[in-house]
Amino acid sequence: MSFDEVLSGTQQELRRGTVVLACLLLLRKPGYGYALLEELRDLGFAVDANTLYPLLRRLEGQGMLVSEWNTQEARPRKFYRISPDGDRLAAELLADWDRIDASIRKLGQGGQES
Amino acid sequence: MSFDEVLSGTQQELRRGTVVLACLLLLRKPGYGYALLEELRDLGFAVDANTLYPLLRRLEGQGMLVSEWNTQEARPRKFYRISPDGDRLAAELLADWDRIDASIRKLGQGGQES
Repeated sequence: MSFDEVLSGTQQELRRGTVVLACLLLLRKPGYGYALLEELRDLGFAVDANTLYPLLRRLEGQGMLVSEWNTQEARPRKFYRISPDGDRLAAELLADWDRIDASIRKLGQGGQES
Repeated sequence: MSFDEVLSGTQQELRRGTVVLACLLLLRKPGYGYALLEELRDLGFAVDANTLYPLLRRLEGQGMLVSEWNTQEARPRKFYRISPDGDRLAAELLADWDRIDASIRKLGQGGQES
């Protein structure tokens, strides 16, 4: 396995866990799958439809998102938005993120000093 | 599935991807499995031996860590430290971390303004 393959694999691992948090935060404004996919990509969370769509259904099943069909436009689309429980989850994960970030930065600096 | 179960699962996902980076950064100073496990726990990366030990072997197999046995003490221990390629990987992942962090913080603020 080449360095680039190892890098690409570990980069994906690093991002994977943050996709749920990014989705919850984005869906504080209602959005549908494809638009969300584009927004995530613009933010650097390279995620594909085969990962995102099941994730949205899982979060809905867990009560973190709610959905409704918008049939106003030519093509009916399922719009997701965050639920009150999802808001709580996002707040907890953001606090967690701060703690992880502080640990990583502390470790990152550790080596530069020595 | 209760809110607490969903929270605990997503928190684990959030941390899982960062364990490789944390290990690489910690192993800029040589360390052995059990001590590393303790250091990771102190930093809030709850990881168990069944996850960490295979991860260390994987990173060694990928050339990101090197190891040697220390037989000076009563109980021989395998010490790992980062390799030059591991240093490169850690630097790339730290840069990546900055980008992910910037995206998450941008998203986190987005909702508080609206």
